[in-house]
Amino acid sequence: QEALNLKTLEKKIASLDQKNDSFNFYLNLQNSANLYLNGGDYQGIDFKTNQMRLEMRGEVVKGIRYRVRHRMNRGTSAEGLDNLSRATDIASISIDVAKNFTITGGKQCTAFGGYEFDLNPIDIYQYSDMIDYMDNFLTGVDFAYQMKGQEFRFQVVNSRNDYMDNIYNGLNGVEASKNALGYTLNWNGSLFNGIVQTRWSYSLFEDAKDMNTNYIALGTQVKLGKKAQLQFDWMNSHEDIDRKGIVSDMVNANGGEYVRASDVVYNSFVAKVDYRVNNKFNMFVKGMYETATNNGNTDTNLNDEFRTSYGYMTGLEYHPIADGLKIFFTYTGRYFDYDSNLTESLGLKDQYTNRFSIGMVYRLKMY
Amino acid sequence: QEALNLKTLEKKIASLDQKNDSFNFYLNLQNSANLYLNGGDYQGIDFKTNQMRLEMRGEVVKGIRYRVRHRMNRGTSAEGLDNLSRATDIASISIDVAKNFTITGGKQCTAFGGYEFDLNPIDIYQYSDMIDYMDNFLTGVDFAYQMKGQEFRFQVVNSRNDYMDNIYNGLNGVEASKNALGYTLNWNGSLFNGIVQTRWSYSLFEDAKDMNTNYIALGTQVKLGKKAQLQFDWMNSHEDIDRKGIVSDMVNANGGEYVRASDVVYNSFVAKVDYRVNNKFNMFVKGMYETATNNGNTDTNLNDEFRTSYGYMTGLEYHPIADGLKIFFTYTGRYFDYDSNLTESLGLKDQYTNRFSIGMVYRLKMY
Amino acid sequence: QEALNLKTLEKKIASLDQKNDSFNFYLNLQNSANLYLNGGDYQGIDFKTNQMRLEMRGEVVKGIRYRVRHRMNRGTSAEGLDNLSRATDIASISIDVAKNFTITGGKQCTAFGGYEFDLNPIDIYQYSDMIDYMDNFLTGVDFAYQMKGQEFRFQVVNSRNDYMDNIYNGLNGVEASKNALGYTLNWNGSLFNGIVQTRWSYSLFEDAKDMNTNYIALGTQVKLGKKAQLQFDWMNSHEDIDRKGIVSDMVNANGGEYVRASDVVYNSFVAKVDYRVNNKFNMFVKGMYETATNNGNTDTNLNDEFRTSYGYMTGLEYHPIADGLKIFFTYTGRYFDYDSNLTESLGLKDQYTNRFSIGMVYRLKMY
Repeated sequence: QEALNLKTLEKKIASLDQKNDSFNFYLNLQNSANLYLNGGDYQGIDFKTNQMRLEMRGEVVKGIRYRVRHRMNRGTSAEGLDNLSRATDIASISIDVAKNFTITGGKQCTAFGGYEFDLNPIDIYQYSDMIDYMDNFLTGVDFAYQMKGQEFRFQVVNSRNDYMDNIYNGLNGVEASKNALGYTLNWNGSLFNGIVQTRWSYSLFEDAKDMNTNYIALGTQVKLGKKAQLQFDWMNSHEDIDRKGIVSDMVNANGGEYVRASDVVYNSFVAKVDYRVNNKFNMFVKGMYETATNNGNTDTNLNDEFRTSYGYMTGLEYHPIADGLKIFFTYTGRYFDYDSNLTESLGLKDQYTNRFSIGMVYRLKMY
Repeated sequence: QEALNLKTLEKKIASLDQKNDSFNFYLNLQNSANLYLNGGDYQGIDFKTNQMRLEMRGEVVKGIRYRVRHRMNRGTSAEGLDNLSRATDIASISIDVAKNFTITGGKQCTAFGGYEFDLNPIDIYQYSDMIDYMDNFLTGVDFAYQMKGQEFRFQVVNSRNDYMDNIYNGLNGVEASKNALGYTLNWNGSLFNGIVQTRWSYSLFEDAKDMNTNYIALGTQVKLGKKAQLQFDWMNSHEDIDRKGIVSDMVNANGGEYVRASDVVYNSFVAKVDYRVNNKFNMFVKGMYETATNNGNTDTNLNDEFRTSYGYMTGLEYHPIADGLKIFFTYTGRYFDYDSNLTESLGLKDQYTNRFSIGMVYRLKMY
Repeated sequence: QEALNLKTLEKKIASLDQKNDSFNFYLNLQNSANLYLNGGDYQGIDFKTNQMRLEMRGEVVKGIRYRVRHRMNRGTSAEGLDNLSRATDIASISIDVAKNFTITGGKQCTAFGGYEFDLNPIDIYQYSDMIDYMDNFLTGVDFAYQMKGQEFRFQVVNSRNDYMDNIYNGLNGVEASKNALGYTLNWNGSLFNGIVQTRWSYSLFEDAKDMNTNYIALGTQVKLGKKAQLQFDWMNSHEDIDRKGIVSDMVNANGGEYVRASDVVYNSFVAKVDYRVNNKFNMFVKGMYETATNNGNTDTNLNDEFRTSYGYMTGLEYHPIADGLKIFFTYTGRYFDYDSNLTESLGLKDQYTNRFSIGMVYRLKMY
């Protein structure tokens, strides 16, 4: 009799358990209190929720997984091309079609390389301009193959979320492309027993007819002994039409009818060293060096090297008991150095900004 | 001792189980890769998330159920009249007040008939214009009575989501109605052992003072042997002020101050045949024939019969292992045939569009 | 053998149970059908969803709790200062740093006093103007200390959600404050064995450089025998720049360039008596008396006492079986009495409005 009851209970629990596997619900939060200095001048303090995203993922049937990640602080109107809003980072289904081979369809994170790009956004205190101005969530299909600790991916996505004319102003006479797609090859490698790891990618995005972006992102991580690691990213984006608009905004600093720059190159180096003091404390330093070059510049008064940007950060992270919870103290400095021709003819001014933050990162598993 | 433990466990499991009954959480997804041809000209390819809705429903207490369905790709600002956004399709509570008798209050799907209307939107690859341009989610009260396999419903809702002037432009001198309500009678029938089923409705919507919409929707489904079925919808909407705006847009094709058409009739026939080849494969063909007539037309150069629209689709659906998952290959053709007077005087052009899609429908039970 | 199985089952159930503690998911709904009379004139009827919010809360680890409350009918674009949308009421983490001492960080309900303010919004049928026009959800840090049934709180938040110039138009020459913070002291008291309870607060908000709001809110609840209770709120807001904008809107009633009023005082008395007839029925009456005074008035034709507003409500609430479900019938009357100088010089008209509602309040625990 009792043995029978036990069987029934076991079955019920197994069914409840299955439900738990198929539904995992996260709240991704980053909050901080901040103090700002521009140059040496005190600018004030404020409280900010830097990141807030809900995430749902799970394995419904063996080999079939879903993932949804949605920002709570973005408008939710659909973009024209992919019919999802920019609030929705990810809405995808992954199917293991063979051992080691997975196809993922839907809106997804682009398969770009680089470690800054690879981390959960709540773990980043300040993005480089390269990633800040990039379209990171696009709709398409990804093919991933795993082999001996290496992962190789090929991804095809729409090259943007909305139609060309809705995104880019100042495109004089540029014609839309019929196949506005982006192609990415990616290698997530692991070498020397994992001491060296890679997030390398090459992408070709067709932005408009005969106008492409070529994007290379080589992220390499090296373990330095048992407690430290170095992450080093090199990113280079050559854009026939200025997707990011950083250079275009400089060109148009004087106002008048907006003209989008063409043949622009953005180049970035990002390095970060983490030192895990002990179980509870982590220290880091991070440096960023970025350039914006206007190869398509036709104004003879201006050098092509428009701007050099520097970023320098350091921080201490404290992990109290709770899983996924991190208290942080950080300093973030930035210096935007415009070419002297630009400061003279276009009135742009170099900027020094400093931010001191105390805050909290929480990848909270609600269910 | 052990018997005692078993009792405690049983109780705990029952309580966990109850929670599971009261919370069901779905992700409704339709994704596709599409290739477009207008007339014979190649227009390009893209990836789209055609539908993305979250749905929560359950029975909290016996006889009391809730349902929420929310689109992830619509703005969420409240409409003026019902104070919910167009992103929220459904937010309702149902109470079984007697055996066979249920009252549902809140924002809900209108009780309109027709099989295209009845299906989950993720199962529709192309709506008819009739339903595409209709307000399908309104706030009010529904009374449903079940008897011998038949369901009869009477529904009263706000006749729109927002105030009249916020929705309809070009209403010269039309006065708002004090009781802007819509009334629907509905019969969801089952005849001949379910071989014939019905989704029939008649609706009267008070759009403005002395201005109504009369809407008839007769959807009938006939089982054709064991593997096939036919669904046939006839829909007719007589609108004193042109709610859908299809005819108004034609009238105003030449620009100038927008004038909303009045006394307009939209009529639609939609037929779909499904053939379930076997457990895993389904094939279908679907045809749509729709007319837009401007009875209130005062321009003697124009016939009242403004436009005839045709739709023709075929597709193959594949059901792999997972419940609620469907892979599809479809062809959708549309032809919009404007009256020759309109093409001549208003410059409107007939349109032929073709779309080939491969994609995925997933009613994913996350919890 | 069986004893072993039992152990395993117990462990599994404990783990499932823990998940249930860490995730509680609510739908907060208030729906109604309403009939409107302005003065004695019938204005019509409609259906409204007055409130719709999702809420998630739980204790992830002992002493660490989260809470998210989000409106489903507000736009979700981020405000500039706190980087969350107005749809998100609450997004906070609470940590018990010591016995009786809790720190809460993130977006939260302000620690203002008053019983109308303290209740769940779905339990309010008509807010006073004071609370309707106030910013109730701000980002910052709260320190709460409990002692002998009393709670004392100190809260520091951003004094607004967005930057000054994005919120307040018509601020001629007012300079933004570097530390745009708001400070609140709060006493949630319990006296005489709980017969008298308090929600008292004093707040100082720095709205702009040398421009503050001083806000006092004293809410007191007295139990009247076993079945009745009285709640009485006095609220007084002295605003150097007119945050609420009620007075400013009157000043600018004639149009022209908008000028924001300064040195404005809003004062409100709200009283509510509840009588719990029995387990299933509750009756209430509520009265509101509010004044808007323009101390900064420079127009000698106008008295400073701009407007007196009255609210008078009564209702019957019925609690059927389901927990958290309430059916209500209410009458709400309002009278806005403008000073005669304003009706004469600015053309403002006194308003009488009446609303009869039948509806439903549901704090629905979905999980």
